[in-house]
Amino acid sequence: MKITIIGLGLIGGSLAKDLRRSKFATELTGVDANEIHAGEALELGLVDRVEPFEKGIKNADLVIIAIPVDKELEVLPAVLDGIDPNTTVADMGSTKKMITDLVKNHPKRKQFIPAHPMSGTENSGPTAAIDDLFRGKIAIICDHEDSGPQHLALIEKMFQVLGMDIAYMSSDDQDHSTAFVSHLPHAAAFALANAVQAKEDRNIIFDLASGGFRSTVRLAKSSCSMWKPIFEQNSQYVVNSLNVYIQHLQQFRDCMKNNEFDKLEELILNANKIRTILDGEHPHFIKNEETFIKLYTK
Amino acid sequence: MKITIIGLGLIGGSLAKDLRRSKFATELTGVDANEIHAGEALELGLVDRVEPFEKGIKNADLVIIAIPVDKELEVLPAVLDGIDPNTTVADMGSTKKMITDLVKNHPKRKQFIPAHPMSGTENSGPTAAIDDLFRGKIAIICDHEDSGPQHLALIEKMFQVLGMDIAYMSSDDQDHSTAFVSHLPHAAAFALANAVQAKEDRNIIFDLASGGFRSTVRLAKSSCSMWKPIFEQNSQYVVNSLNVYIQHLQQFRDCMKNNEFDKLEELILNANKIRTILDGEHPHFIKNEETFIKLYTK
Repeated sequence: MKITIIGLGLIGGSLAKDLRRSKFATELTGVDANEIHAGEALELGLVDRVEPFEKGIKNADLVIIAIPVDKELEVLPAVLDGIDPNTTVADMGSTKKMITDLVKNHPKRKQFIPAHPMSGTENSGPTAAIDDLFRGKIAIICDHEDSGPQHLALIEKMFQVLGMDIAYMSSDDQDHSTAFVSHLPHAAAFALANAVQAKEDRNIIFDLASGGFRSTVRLAKSSCSMWKPIFEQNSQYVVNSLNVYIQHLQQFRDCMKNNEFDKLEELILNANKIRTILDGEHPHFIKNEETFIKLYTK
Repeated sequence: MKITIIGLGLIGGSLAKDLRRSKFATELTGVDANEIHAGEALELGLVDRVEPFEKGIKNADLVIIAIPVDKELEVLPAVLDGIDPNTTVADMGSTKKMITDLVKNHPKRKQFIPAHPMSGTENSGPTAAIDDLFRGKIAIICDHEDSGPQHLALIEKMFQVLGMDIAYMSSDDQDHSTAFVSHLPHAAAFALANAVQAKEDRNIIFDLASGGFRSTVRLAKSSCSMWKPIFEQNSQYVVNSLNVYIQHLQQFRDCMKNNEFDKLEELILNANKIRTILDGEHPHFIKNEETFIKLYTK
C-alpha cells in the first residue's frame, strides 16, 4: 500500500518505521514544510522519497497528517480537496473538535478518519522517531459514524498492525478526556518547571534534582510548536481541568497550613489508589479478536 | 566494618545491598519494628541477622537510620543514648531541621551525621531494595561543623563508595531546597492523582492514561507512612513552594482564559529551558578527587 505521511516528526517518523517493518506500507512518501526535517527523514530511511505537497498526496492509498494542530487547520482541507476518490486520510492530532467542525460539510468528509494515538515522548523531529512507539497504547477514533466504512476499516487495521487498542468516542468527549489525561499533565509540568526556575537559588535546585523531580517535570521539555496550538484549541476543557487540579493542590496545601494531617493522610491514601488503577492493563476494554475495542457512549 | 541498619525498606535495603557488595560492610545487622519486613530482609539476604533494637546498636561501627521521619524523632535520641563512644550514626531522612534541633544538645551529637541521599523510587519495603539506587545522585550532609571530623569522614567515604556526589548545607537550607525539588513534585503528583480520580468518567481517563500521564503521576504511588511526616515536618517550606506552584498554574490557566497565547508561548519556552539544565551532569559541582563536592554557603 502506498502511504504518504505529512509531517515527519516524532509521530510521523515513528509511524513510518512501524508501518514499513510490518509491510503495511510498501511505498512511503514524505511531505514536510521543514526542509531540514525532510532531509533528515530521507537520510534516516524513514521514507522512500520526499515530495512537494500537491504531488505527495496524489496516487496515495492513505495520507496520514501528523503535524501541529494549528497547521492541520490549513492542511486537512487542502488534502481533502486534492486527493483521489479512493484515498483515505487520517490525522493524528491531540485535539479533535475544531478540526472535525472545520471539515464537517466537506464533500470528501467520509474519506477522513479523525484519530489520536495516545503515545509520544518529550522529544521531537525525525531523529526522535522510534520503533514500537505505539504498541500497547490506545488509539482514539472520533465520530466514526461520519466516516465511510472502508476508510474506517483501513485505519482500524493500521492501528491493529501498530499493536494498539482502539477507543471510539465523539470529538467532544475525546477533547474533554484528553484535557485531563494528557493536556493537564503537560500544563502541570510546564508550570512546575517555571516554578522551580523562579526560585532564587536555582543552582541548588538543579544540582539536587532527583529522579522524582525529573520524571514529574519531564513533559516540560515538550515542543512549544506542538503544545501551544493544543492549548489554544482545547482551552475550555484544559482551563476546567486546571481549575480542578488547582482546587486539589489548594486542599493539599490547606491541610498543611491548618495542621490537619489526618485529612492530609486521607488525601495521600486516595492518591495512592492510582497505583492499582494504572497497573491494570486497560481493564475496561473488551477483547475482540486481535485487538481490544471500546465504544464510549453516553 | 560492622554496620547496623535500622529500617529495612527501600533505602535501608538498597544501602545494605551496595555496602555489602562494595565490601564497605563486612557484617550487616538489621533492626526493624515490622516483623514481616525483618523476615523478608533476612530471606532476601539483605542483612546477616536481625536483632532487637538494644542489642542491634551495640558493638556497631556505624548505625544507619532509614525510617520515616516521625519515627526518627523517637529512635535517634534512643540510638545516641545507647551507642558506644566510637560508633558513628547517620540518618537518611528527607527533612533535617526538626531532627537536628531535637538532638542539638545531646552529649553524643558529634557522633551523628544528618544526611539525605536524594534518591528513591515510588516503591517501598525490603522487596523494593535495588542495586545501585544511589549511583550518580546527590547526598546532602547537613551542619557538618557540628559533627566530629572522623565521623564525618566515615559518612563521606560511605557516600563515595555508593557513587554519590556530596552537597553540604545547613539543615534549614536543605529543608528549603528539598521542599521545591522533592516535596513539591510529590505534592503535585498526589493532587494530580486525586484530580483525575475526581472526574466523573474515571474509566475513560484510566483507559487513556498515556506515558506522559503515567510519568507525571508516578510519585503519587509513594508511601503515605513515609510522606505524611515529611509534609508535617517541612510544612512551612512546602506550603511556600505550593503557593509558588499554584501561582504559576493560575498564570498558565489565565493565558488560556484570556486568549493570551503569545504569553502562553513565552511560558512554555521558559519551561523548555529545564531540558538544558537537567541534562547537564551537576554542572555546579567542582571535581575533587574521586567525588564531586559542593559547599553551599550564604
